[in-house]
Amino acid sequence: MSQRVYIFDTTLRDGEQVPGCQLSTDEKIVVAKQLEKLGVDVIEAGFPVSSPGDFRSVVEISKAVSEPTICALSRAVAADIEAAGEALKHAKRGRIHTGIGSSDIHIQHKFNTTREKIIERAIDATKLARTLVEDVEFYCEDAGRADLQFLAQLVEAVIGAGATVVNIPDTTGYCLPDEYASKIRYIFENVKNVHKATISIHCHNDLGLATANSLAGIQVGARQVEVTVNGIGERAGNTSLEEVVMALNIHPELGLHTGINTQLIYPTSQLVSKMMRMQVQANKAIVGRNAFAHSSGIHQDGFLKHSQNYEIMNPQDVGVDKSDIVLTARSGRHALKHRLELLGFVYEKNILDNLYRQFLDIADHKKEVNDGDLVDLAKSLERA
Amino acid sequence: MSQRVYIFDTTLRDGEQVPGCQLSTDEKIVVAKQLEKLGVDVIEAGFPVSSPGDFRSVVEISKAVSEPTICALSRAVAADIEAAGEALKHAKRGRIHTGIGSSDIHIQHKFNTTREKIIERAIDATKLARTLVEDVEFYCEDAGRADLQFLAQLVEAVIGAGATVVNIPDTTGYCLPDEYASKIRYIFENVKNVHKATISIHCHNDLGLATANSLAGIQVGARQVEVTVNGIGERAGNTSLEEVVMALNIHPELGLHTGINTQLIYPTSQLVSKMMRMQVQANKAIVGRNAFAHSSGIHQDGFLKHSQNYEIMNPQDVGVDKSDIVLTARSGRHALKHRLELLGFVYEKNILDNLYRQFLDIADHKKEVNDGDLVDLAKSLERA
Repeated sequence: MSQRVYIFDTTLRDGEQVPGCQLSTDEKIVVAKQLEKLGVDVIEAGFPVSSPGDFRSVVEISKAVSEPTICALSRAVAADIEAAGEALKHAKRGRIHTGIGSSDIHIQHKFNTTREKIIERAIDATKLARTLVEDVEFYCEDAGRADLQFLAQLVEAVIGAGATVVNIPDTTGYCLPDEYASKIRYIFENVKNVHKATISIHCHNDLGLATANSLAGIQVGARQVEVTVNGIGERAGNTSLEEVVMALNIHPELGLHTGINTQLIYPTSQLVSKMMRMQVQANKAIVGRNAFAHSSGIHQDGFLKHSQNYEIMNPQDVGVDKSDIVLTARSGRHALKHRLELLGFVYEKNILDNLYRQFLDIADHKKEVNDGDLVDLAKSLERA
Repeated sequence: MSQRVYIFDTTLRDGEQVPGCQLSTDEKIVVAKQLEKLGVDVIEAGFPVSSPGDFRSVVEISKAVSEPTICALSRAVAADIEAAGEALKHAKRGRIHTGIGSSDIHIQHKFNTTREKIIERAIDATKLARTLVEDVEFYCEDAGRADLQFLAQLVEAVIGAGATVVNIPDTTGYCLPDEYASKIRYIFENVKNVHKATISIHCHNDLGLATANSLAGIQVGARQVEVTVNGIGERAGNTSLEEVVMALNIHPELGLHTGINTQLIYPTSQLVSKMMRMQVQANKAIVGRNAFAHSSGIHQDGFLKHSQNYEIMNPQDVGVDKSDIVLTARSGRHALKHRLELLGFVYEKNILDNLYRQFLDIADHKKEVNDGDLVDLAKSLERA
């Protein structure tokens, strides 16, 4: 029977900390609502202690979104954890994500401490977080370069202290897939209480291996994967939501599935790209402009004879449908409303009437109005 | 002892067939010379039968470049192979790359034929190519979805017919890394004459797994990998040269190395991006604008304490060095000449004097002149 893999989306936390990607609270709510429609299981909404804006965003997203668990980041520091707990007060299901460095490089050069002290701080942080919320995730930062035996001790300690999820991140994007899989396998085989928690995967793409490492971790038993839309994030970015979801989708032999509505992948990608001002490169897997473009003569010929010659998924499965996403001056109010809703913007009739007039002006000038234009239009309204 | 993995660059063939990326013959020569400096082993220079321009490009690149093998693509069709052989006449070392579909999907829906006929055509094509050049590579198109037993038969047949390299491509970007590795392993274990040829890896990035699949194939014995600069190419693109090279570089435990001068990776990436008008996304691994940018407070703090907290390679190792790549109005003629040469543009003194005057004009307006500006400048000169 197919098992569920939980999608933990950190577009609004790890993704948003990229230079130039910062969003206002209102913008974050738009993205969060879209992530809810997309079907993510957890939204990491911010790092409350880091700024009043981040705190407010976690509060407002907790109020605006009800299906996914809302998660708030903290270091293994009491003030961080308390701020996270406070910000999550309105969440239907809130999770505190706390943690500390687990590699000797981090223990020595970042925390200037010992392995023993790290375990003490980890236990204290987990226990404190559990007094505030029932769902506590612990991250073992830089686990990709950590000593495995120590990592297993740390994981066992935090599960014993009440962690419900333990995140084994490859923080620096260093690992190769088989290496990362064997680390995760080691955790399953050497942590006595591992069945009491969900093991989570969090990879970075510094060597272009984030998706492969995430899949490798899932294949050996991790059941949560931490991702961002379009793979945005610190440095070379995080694991791409769309790549992991579609890899599981077109490989049913793995016996794993997610709760994602794949047809909303492309509109969500467009929304995040526009709002965060991070262009998606033309050849980005699944959501790039050329992802389904067949350009060479050999490929076009083969594609026209039989689309499966060069296509492993149907563009419509991820919401790429030219006939659907391009609006023109002949498009009606209803088509505009429907498209805006797919992009996360829901308006009352009088606002929609106003938007429709502006839309017709744009459509008169440009022949085709795409999702990017609609996001611009909606954002200009919110600024007005 | 560390073994050599050969880098087969197809930026000018598989990369160039992307919409909007087409280059003139002169532009291709600039890129080819830069690839030679970078240290690639094989340059796939074009598909001669496809157009007079492609034919001419293969001829001119064969004359302009002497270190790498020059490779020309052909289908398993006599006219294609003869055109490839003709175009390679001036190459110091020329290779014909011919092949045919190997999956049942391609055999039935693209070639409308049988497995037996495919093997016959493959043998004929290989033999014909060997009458024209000594180095013949055979591609088994869509090997990623081919029946393994048939694939092994096909590989054995073309090696028997004289193929020196056999390419096992995952044409549609369908495979998972362990699946792809087991296909390559099967070839090594079931093709009797496999030791007489080099097995080559050619992956596409439709699920974001091209680099992982390429490494998986190399790890089980393939010794050539087909890549493009910045991962450009059909649909979601090909395997990124920079990702495979740096993964081998920072994982010496694999016992594998390439002949790439890694310090030219970033200038080459910039040159290809500019010339092919394909923007590199900010979070592209290794060569993106943010690849070495630490933005969050936690990361900046950790990075400043000890760079290895968040860095697995030194930016200088791939040629990213702000102090080196930014020229200003105070930069001398020698610095300009050096930087232009790194980017593949070599000029005589009088042309350089002229360029230097133009450079100073630009530097007066813009405070910093980057590699992109220099490529624009050099290209404007060539158009003039």
